[in-house]
Amino acid sequence: MVGLMAYPIRHSMSPTMHNNSFAKLGLNGAYLCFEIGNDKLEGAVNAIRTLDMRGSNVSMPNKKEVIKYLDKLSPASKMCDAVNTIVNDHGTLTGYTTDGIGFVQSLKDEGISIKNKVMTLAGAGGAATPIAVQSALDGVKEIKIFNIKDDKWAQAEKNVKTIKENTDCKVSLTDLADQDAFKKAIAESDIYCDATGVGMKPLEDKTLVSDPSWFHKDMVVFDTVYAPRTTKLMKVAQKAGVKHVFDGIGIMIEQGAASFKLWTGKICQLITFVRLCFQIKKRTNNY
Amino acid sequence: MVGLMAYPIRHSMSPTMHNNSFAKLGLNGAYLCFEIGNDKLEGAVNAIRTLDMRGSNVSMPNKKEVIKYLDKLSPASKMCDAVNTIVNDHGTLTGYTTDGIGFVQSLKDEGISIKNKVMTLAGAGGAATPIAVQSALDGVKEIKIFNIKDDKWAQAEKNVKTIKENTDCKVSLTDLADQDAFKKAIAESDIYCDATGVGMKPLEDKTLVSDPSWFHKDMVVFDTVYAPRTTKLMKVAQKAGVKHVFDGIGIMIEQGAASFKLWTGKICQLITFVRLCFQIKKRTNNY
Repeated sequence: MVGLMAYPIRHSMSPTMHNNSFAKLGLNGAYLCFEIGNDKLEGAVNAIRTLDMRGSNVSMPNKKEVIKYLDKLSPASKMCDAVNTIVNDHGTLTGYTTDGIGFVQSLKDEGISIKNKVMTLAGAGGAATPIAVQSALDGVKEIKIFNIKDDKWAQAEKNVKTIKENTDCKVSLTDLADQDAFKKAIAESDIYCDATGVGMKPLEDKTLVSDPSWFHKDMVVFDTVYAPRTTKLMKVAQKAGVKHVFDGIGIMIEQGAASFKLWTGKICQLITFVRLCFQIKKRTNNY
Repeated sequence: MVGLMAYPIRHSMSPTMHNNSFAKLGLNGAYLCFEIGNDKLEGAVNAIRTLDMRGSNVSMPNKKEVIKYLDKLSPASKMCDAVNTIVNDHGTLTGYTTDGIGFVQSLKDEGISIKNKVMTLAGAGGAATPIAVQSALDGVKEIKIFNIKDDKWAQAEKNVKTIKENTDCKVSLTDLADQDAFKKAIAESDIYCDATGVGMKPLEDKTLVSDPSWFHKDMVVFDTVYAPRTTKLMKVAQKAGVKHVFDGIGIMIEQGAASFKLWTGKICQLITFVRLCFQIKKRTNNY
């Protein structure tokens, strides 16, 4: 048994994905959702131990809060100061973050390696931080982070410091208000990733880049949003003739697959994912 | 989500039964087993609240121990001083015992009412007590309890006292060593129920009644054992020409159905049970 501890939670696709994968692989497993906020989190983590659950996913608002109840953290999890996956090894709970793995792996699925690439990354929140950390750990050459001077700015500064301390990746942080620098960074990049959530409903008519000329054809444009399936940013990139334009579905699938592998040691069968993809496609189009 | 908290547990048929029933009825439910002994019981009951589980079954060694962690008890549960089913109503945990309901209902399934009947009951343990209590609550006229003077004798005396205090049922307790009294009681009874576990593997060559002449044809002979499917006692009763000879499968199914109804408000579909019965038949024959 594995769980998902978050609030709200009823919209989650994770039970479908994991329970399908258990069934496909003939594993006697069940993935269950629990509506858990910070107030019930300690009890819920105790339940992992008491009920000898194999582990759990953790999502908002518990990703940072859960750390104090765990025994160990993976390197990426430590650097992100966040956990989305707990693995229970006979009572010892280790926290992992697979969101960044999801980003790197979803590009790999498309035949794209991030090694030695230059990336411009917009954002410094819960989506952006693991992408920056995992990319740095996995060999991206340089990350140019852009963010507005909002409540995430301190986190952005922390991310820069952590990446510098723990990896060989070159990393910088610039105010998004400096549009010339932003435009120049994108022009110099192999990958542009928007992890701000701008473009997601109800902000679906917004994008940080509205001029197609900012992009070049042979780059990757990645939006972590997956509802709507095609964001304004993606449309701009498509208009610019960019070949590799991706939404956030790949991250969602591959972060789940990474969690699944941590719990079971097994790889989710791709056919499940592909079918699921189409289910999600159908769903998200009907949002 | 509902659970089963017991140790040992891996042999249990309950997940098959309940998960089949959830699926048949299109309910989004899961029944999961947890290896829980007395030491982890408090944490496990806390988990019911924290994870907002609908409830749980409880079996050995937790049936009495669990009471102190609950908020309320059903009348039968209070009289038995035991719980096999917990229902969670928004954080309020009520303990029930459905084992006795299983006995009464499994006879009803065969068209037999216990109302105003005279019953001889061998035993005073975890199987016998809820049978005595529920039968008394449901209108049996008289229960003649027999037990050897072992560690269950005090429980037998308590059962007599509780039934007298709470119901109109006539009830007596006699030492099983008094074989004349035992023989006479059975002769005067409409129902003979053996709830001692004698006849169960590895005691499958034992029976408290080995002389077919003690039984009369129009009575009910009930053995709470279900492995082997046909106990020595049942063979003796069949040899005596007794028409209504039952094993413990009916109790097992109907106690589960009663728990299922408490959690969901729904009746398990009979077809599931019937199919399950045959599965169990196959299994127990291979014991």
